[in-house]
Amino acid sequence: MTNKENIQIIGAGLCGALLALRLGQRGYNVEVFEKRPDLRRVHINAGRSINLAFSNRGIKAMKLVGIQDKVEPLCIPMYGRMLHDVEGNTILSPYSGREDEYINSISRNALNALLLDEAEALDNVTFHFNHKCTSVDFEKGISQFYKYQDQTEFAKKADVIIGTDGAGSVLRKSYFLAKKFLFSFSQDYLTYGYKELSILPDNNGDYKVYKNALHIWGRDAFMLIALPNLDGSFTVTLFLSYDEGTYNFNNLTTKARVQEFFNTYFKDALELMPNLVDEFFKNPTSPLGTVKCAPWHYKGKTLLMGDAAHAIVPFYGQGMNASFEDVVEFDKVLDAGHNSWEAIFKAFERMRKKDTDAIADLAIDNFHEMKGHVNKAIFREKRNLEMAFEKQFPNEYASKYALVTFNEDMGYCEAMLRGRAQDKAILNMLADKEITLDDDLRETLNKVKAETEHILEEDSIAKKMRH
Amino acid sequence: MTNKENIQIIGAGLCGALLALRLGQRGYNVEVFEKRPDLRRVHINAGRSINLAFSNRGIKAMKLVGIQDKVEPLCIPMYGRMLHDVEGNTILSPYSGREDEYINSISRNALNALLLDEAEALDNVTFHFNHKCTSVDFEKGISQFYKYQDQTEFAKKADVIIGTDGAGSVLRKSYFLAKKFLFSFSQDYLTYGYKELSILPDNNGDYKVYKNALHIWGRDAFMLIALPNLDGSFTVTLFLSYDEGTYNFNNLTTKARVQEFFNTYFKDALELMPNLVDEFFKNPTSPLGTVKCAPWHYKGKTLLMGDAAHAIVPFYGQGMNASFEDVVEFDKVLDAGHNSWEAIFKAFERMRKKDTDAIADLAIDNFHEMKGHVNKAIFREKRNLEMAFEKQFPNEYASKYALVTFNEDMGYCEAMLRGRAQDKAILNMLADKEITLDDDLRETLNKVKAETEHILEEDSIAKKMRH
Repeated sequence: MTNKENIQIIGAGLCGALLALRLGQRGYNVEVFEKRPDLRRVHINAGRSINLAFSNRGIKAMKLVGIQDKVEPLCIPMYGRMLHDVEGNTILSPYSGREDEYINSISRNALNALLLDEAEALDNVTFHFNHKCTSVDFEKGISQFYKYQDQTEFAKKADVIIGTDGAGSVLRKSYFLAKKFLFSFSQDYLTYGYKELSILPDNNGDYKVYKNALHIWGRDAFMLIALPNLDGSFTVTLFLSYDEGTYNFNNLTTKARVQEFFNTYFKDALELMPNLVDEFFKNPTSPLGTVKCAPWHYKGKTLLMGDAAHAIVPFYGQGMNASFEDVVEFDKVLDAGHNSWEAIFKAFERMRKKDTDAIADLAIDNFHEMKGHVNKAIFREKRNLEMAFEKQFPNEYASKYALVTFNEDMGYCEAMLRGRAQDKAILNMLADKEITLDDDLRETLNKVKAETEHILEEDSIAKKMRH
Repeated sequence: MTNKENIQIIGAGLCGALLALRLGQRGYNVEVFEKRPDLRRVHINAGRSINLAFSNRGIKAMKLVGIQDKVEPLCIPMYGRMLHDVEGNTILSPYSGREDEYINSISRNALNALLLDEAEALDNVTFHFNHKCTSVDFEKGISQFYKYQDQTEFAKKADVIIGTDGAGSVLRKSYFLAKKFLFSFSQDYLTYGYKELSILPDNNGDYKVYKNALHIWGRDAFMLIALPNLDGSFTVTLFLSYDEGTYNFNNLTTKARVQEFFNTYFKDALELMPNLVDEFFKNPTSPLGTVKCAPWHYKGKTLLMGDAAHAIVPFYGQGMNASFEDVVEFDKVLDAGHNSWEAIFKAFERMRKKDTDAIADLAIDNFHEMKGHVNKAIFREKRNLEMAFEKQFPNEYASKYALVTFNEDMGYCEAMLRGRAQDKAILNMLADKEITLDDDLRETLNKVKAETEHILEEDSIAKKMRH
C-alpha cells in the first residue's frame, strides 16, 4: 500500500470533489467519474442556484484543504431564525447566545465549482464528466461506465473505488442487489415532499426581506423557509404533506388553490412572490428520505462516503457539513498508519457511522421543531433560557443546536445524547416549575447541569442493560 | 365490496394458512398459492421438526378460529429459562411469578399442517402447492406464478392479493423494485448467525434434560438454547458471531475446533450431543435479520402481512405470535364496517404497525438480555424482585416480559414503553440503593410504580417536543 495507488471516485458532487482534492494533496492518483456535465461549463439551474447551510464542520474541512479564504466570499451569514407568524409578525431567534456562532447560506454550485477547480489544478487528479457509472463489481474492483458523448460503455479497474455518488448511489445499489454479503440497508421517506420556489430581488437588486437570517414560516403541519443568495434573491422551500390535511401536494392542482393556500397561511411571503404560481407548477415536488446502510465498505476494495452512505433530510442544515466531515475523518484515519485499505475502511466506518446515524435522527427531530415547536410557549421559554446561559456563561453551556452546529470537535452522536438530555432536563423542569426565567441564572444553570448529568447517568444504566 | 370477492393469498406458511382459514370462515373465496410442496405430504425436515415458542397472543388467534383444543396437545409447556453456567450448574428462572403464565414449545410443521387441514376443509378455500409467485403487478392486481410440476408460468388476477410470503416476500420486492410510490424499507442484519443442532432422546426415548424449560447457555458474546420436542428430543440453536471473537462461524472450520469450542463453553451440553460435530457441518448457518417497511398496502389492491411486512429476530419468541396476532387485528378491522378494501388496509396498518415495530425492537433487546444479562447480579436482583411482585401482588405488577408475552390485550408498543420504563426504574433504584430486596415489598412496589410513572411522564414531555 503506497500513495501511488490508483483511486477511482464515482461522483464529483460536493463530497467527491472535496475527497478528490484531499486525496490528490496526499499524492494519490485520483480519477473521478461524474454522470452530469461539468457544472462550471453548463448552466444547470439557469440563473439562481440552490443554496445550502454551511457551518463549522464544513469550515473545518475547507481549512484542511486550505481553501477557506476562497470559500468565505461565497458565504452569507445567517445569525438566527426569522420567525414569521400567520399575521406577518416577525421575530429573530438567534442560533446562539455567543456572537461568533452563526451559520451561512452558500451556493451549492459555486462551492462545487471551486472544489473542482482546486482539485483539477493538481496533476494527479483527473475528472471525467458525462460518464455514468452503471454498476460496480466490488469483488474485482471494476466499475462499468456509460459515456453519454459517444454512447459507448467501458469497464475501468482501480486499486480502490470510492462511491460519493449521492443518495441514489450506484455502488450502494450494487452491494444491495449482488447479495454477496449481509448488507443492512434502510430507506425511510417522510410523508412530506418539498418544492423550491423563490423571492426575487427588488427593482434595485436588493433583498426584499432581512438578508442575514434563515426565514421560517412554521405552520405545524407544514412550513416554508427561505435562505438568501448573493444576487439579492432568496431560495424558498415549501415542505408539505403529499396527501394529508386540507392542503397538500396532491390536491394543490389549480392556480387558484395554490394562491388561496399561500394567501391563508403565508400572506406576507406571497406578497414577496409575484412569481409564485408559475414556479409552483414549473418546479418539481421531491421526496424527503433518509438512507442508512452497513457495511459501507467491501473488504479493501470499495467504500461509500457522503450521501451515498448516509443521506439525511435537510432540517438540521447538516447534509453537506456531514459529508465534508466524512473527508476530515477519513483523512485522520489515513494518518493513523493502518497497513491495508481494509483496515482503513473498517476503522473509518467504526469511528464514523455512529455519528452519521445520529445526525440522521437529529435531522428528523428538527423537522418537527422547525414547523411547530418554535412557535410554542414552552419551547420559546427553553430557547430564551438557553440564550441567556450562552450569553452569560459562554464557556459553560451550549444548546443541542450549538453542540451539533458549532462544536465541530464533538461528534454528532455525543452532541445528540448530551443535547437531548439537556432538552429533556429543561423542558421537564420548566413544566414542573422547578425552574423559571425569573430565578437566579447561575442557580438555574447549576440545576440544569445536575439534572442533565442525572438523565445521562440513568439512561446509561438502562441502555447498558439493553446492549 | 361483498364477502363474495376473490382473495388471493401468496404463501401458505403459518400466517397465510391461518389467514385463509379465517377469511374462509368469514365467507370469502380464498385461493392460496405456496411455492413449497405440501408439508403434510412431504417430509421436509426428515424426522424431528423445528419448534417455536407459542404463547398468549398466538393462543388468542387459535381461539378466534376455534381450534385451540386441537392445538393444545401439540404444546409442551416451558415454565422458565433453565440457565446453564460454564461449570454446568443450572438454575430455573421462571417466566412469571404467576403460575398460569408460561410459554410453550410447538412444532412448526405440526401446527402448520393443522391450519392447512382446517382451512382446506372449507369449500371456499383452495390451496395450490408448488406454485412460486415470481412478481406482482400491484396496480392491476395480477400475480405471476411458476408451476414447478410442468414448468409453466401463468398470471392470476384477484380482487385482493395478500402477501404472507415471509421475510423474502415477492410482493414486498415488487413494491421495492417498481418505484411507483415512496416505499420505506429496511433490512437490518445482526453480525450474528445461527445454526440448528439437536439433543436426541435417551435410549428409553426420554428427555435427557428437564423437559419443561427453555434451556439457555448464555456466554455474553454467544449463546446456545434448546427447546423440547414431543418425541423426547430438543432442538438446539447456536447463536454466534460470523467473524468476531476467538471462536466464530467463519473460523469454526474443523471438527477438532468445534469440539474444542463446545468443550470449553458448553461442556454439559456437549455431553448430551454425541452427534454434534456431524450436525454442525451438515446444517446451514443462517443470518438473523429484521425487516420493516411502509406502506404495507397498495391502495385497495394488495397487502403485506406476517413476516412479509415485519420479519423479526427470534429472541423474544414472538415471531409466530406476532404474525398470528396480525390476523386477529385484521379480523377486528373487518368487523369495523369500512366500505372499501383501501380503508380496511389503511386502518389495519395504522393500528398495527406501531406494535410490530415495537416487537422488532424488543426482540433485539432480548438478544442481549439472553446471552449476557441473565447472568449479571443486578439483572438477577431485578428478576427476583419482579418475581416477588408478581407472586405477592399478581394483579398489580407485570414485568416487561409478562406484558409482552402474557398480556395479549395490551399492544406490543404499550408493553414496550411501560416495560422499559419499569426496567429503568428498578435498575436505577437498585444501583442507587434506593430499593433493596430486604425492604418491605409493598413499599418497594409503590416506589417502583411511582418512579415508572415519573419516567413515562418525563419521556412523554421530551418526546412530544421531538414529534
